[in-house]
Amino acid sequence: MERVNAESDIDKAVHLHVEALLQRYLADRRAQLPELAQTFAAAVDTLSDFALRGGKRIRPTFAWWGWRAAGGEGSGPRADAVLTAVTALELIQACALVHDDLMDASELRRGRPTVHVRFTDAHRAGAWLGEPERFGMAAAILLGDLALAWADDMFSGAPLSEGMRTAAREPWLAMRSEMFAGQYLDVLAQAEGDESEERALGVARLKTAAYTVERPMHLGVALAGADQDTVGAVRTFGTDIGVAFQLRDDLLGVYGDTEVTGKPAGDDLREGKRTLLVSLGLRYADEAGRHADADLLRGALGNPDLTQETIERVRELLVEVGAVDELERRIERLSNSGMAALDTAGLAEPGRTRLADLAIAATRRDR
Amino acid sequence: MERVNAESDIDKAVHLHVEALLQRYLADRRAQLPELAQTFAAAVDTLSDFALRGGKRIRPTFAWWGWRAAGGEGSGPRADAVLTAVTALELIQACALVHDDLMDASELRRGRPTVHVRFTDAHRAGAWLGEPERFGMAAAILLGDLALAWADDMFSGAPLSEGMRTAAREPWLAMRSEMFAGQYLDVLAQAEGDESEERALGVARLKTAAYTVERPMHLGVALAGADQDTVGAVRTFGTDIGVAFQLRDDLLGVYGDTEVTGKPAGDDLREGKRTLLVSLGLRYADEAGRHADADLLRGALGNPDLTQETIERVRELLVEVGAVDELERRIERLSNSGMAALDTAGLAEPGRTRLADLAIAATRRDR
Repeated sequence: MERVNAESDIDKAVHLHVEALLQRYLADRRAQLPELAQTFAAAVDTLSDFALRGGKRIRPTFAWWGWRAAGGEGSGPRADAVLTAVTALELIQACALVHDDLMDASELRRGRPTVHVRFTDAHRAGAWLGEPERFGMAAAILLGDLALAWADDMFSGAPLSEGMRTAAREPWLAMRSEMFAGQYLDVLAQAEGDESEERALGVARLKTAAYTVERPMHLGVALAGADQDTVGAVRTFGTDIGVAFQLRDDLLGVYGDTEVTGKPAGDDLREGKRTLLVSLGLRYADEAGRHADADLLRGALGNPDLTQETIERVRELLVEVGAVDELERRIERLSNSGMAALDTAGLAEPGRTRLADLAIAATRRDR
Repeated sequence: MERVNAESDIDKAVHLHVEALLQRYLADRRAQLPELAQTFAAAVDTLSDFALRGGKRIRPTFAWWGWRAAGGEGSGPRADAVLTAVTALELIQACALVHDDLMDASELRRGRPTVHVRFTDAHRAGAWLGEPERFGMAAAILLGDLALAWADDMFSGAPLSEGMRTAAREPWLAMRSEMFAGQYLDVLAQAEGDESEERALGVARLKTAAYTVERPMHLGVALAGADQDTVGAVRTFGTDIGVAFQLRDDLLGVYGDTEVTGKPAGDDLREGKRTLLVSLGLRYADEAGRHADADLLRGALGNPDLTQETIERVRELLVEVGAVDELERRIERLSNSGMAALDTAGLAEPGRTRLADLAIAATRRDR
């Protein structure tokens, strides 16, 4: 079955439509804060600035193309309502990033100070009472919470029909629970120094695959009233592509060009991230009797003073023991199985092709 | 107009019904976490334990009696749906408390370790990698976020009619925005060392009155389809009683018995809380030329090493300059104006009497 729909205005630039809606929503919410809360409104501007500057709007985009591929209209009142509902994903993401940066003590995001750092700096500049870091932390916690609450308000305020709302409940609920679960597993794995592939894959599945690809698409096709077979096929596609996306991220976290990733070289190593790349590297090094290399890698993980020289050495050894090749193989296998699942879903054009394009873009080397 | 309804099972013990629903909801959510997230499920148990142990369920109780007083049924499917919707307020409160304890670096809540402390301790006990405090912070942020997301899911999962859902949108949205705004204003006032009555009252209005009394009741009466006059009268009642409630809290924070409040004596002073009591105390002391007393009070605020002797001296001087009397006068005035507003709302029994009883309980000296 192949249904072809014409490209709509939204189709032509999903991320721009998402940004316009997000901007309008944030301005409306700010205007509706009570008179008493004007100093808070100024803080909200920092959140808005953060949410509106940059970002690929990847989650609303996957959700939108899920909707379209499952037969949803590209324009009209229902399309507008769906666009509002999926734009709310950007506010969940704003919460996730603001809180994640705080948890990781990251100073920069997209080349600019993170939210907690901005408020820490404001406190210091004002020579206020108490510890600047504690004020920065409080502001970041509260603004992240606000973004999460507003995500739900934006979502539940979208004029969806009762049937659409019911269909959307499962993916909307699961997406947020799975994201927080994935973040917790990630933090726990770092703390426990967990080296298992199982844990690394668990984090990839929950934090990236479920939250970024699978559930947004699930949301989109559910809103379009897709049957269980379609939902199942799309979720398999999303899971496979999502994990492949994370494995590509693992590679970029170690080998990526700073100018492309926007993060310092070797940042994943410095932060001690327990990725599949690291798990495989450790196992292969041990199996090959290269215990000194395994120890070098273990010592690099979570070392804040990691030198460029050690990063280079780690890069080499991960190639030498075969971890990089294995990751590339897995990315390819997951991409293939994901695409095969997509083909069984009986989706409409142009949605099907756009989903395939998104999958390719998410997993390719020069991302 | 006076309508009288019989007392239902829920009416007889609102908080017990709220607790039972909360317990069931948390157990369901936990059971539905994916297989992969079993270590997260263990963390969720800490959140559940925290949310289920103690607490007066004051917000769902105000909301329930708002519903009943505006003519909502005490039993049956609609009553059950409303009870589910208002029980979700306890999950917002779980988020607020977990994040608040983290921001304030509080060690204890209701005599037991706070959530971030429990995870900090677990990290230390396991001799894990990284800083224990950072792990405790991350876990508390994520579990608070989860509680907030689940609050929305519980609320939107309640089988309300489309009309009820629409009516509930404004109070549900405003309640959360105002709570975060109030918390931010509170943190900012402490940082800036703001001594104005205006700021202290702003925090009281947003953080306590709006979030704890006004909006929960607004939610309850809106669900029952109350007209604008009733909503207005109930909101005035809620604002006045809510501010009075906070002023009583200010007094208890300085004069309260540790065994009753569950907090160390003088905790509000030690934390540097900018309450109306403090604002008035400073102004009256300055106006009376008691500058040494004003400086003593200023020096006590936010001093972590505050002695029992200084606490005693602050207690005396706040009485001497007339700040305590003025607070009592304001509490009485607000209670009276709140009760007068309640009388204009044309509410049904037993709801009207129960709301009045709740107001008296919230504002009286021996609370």
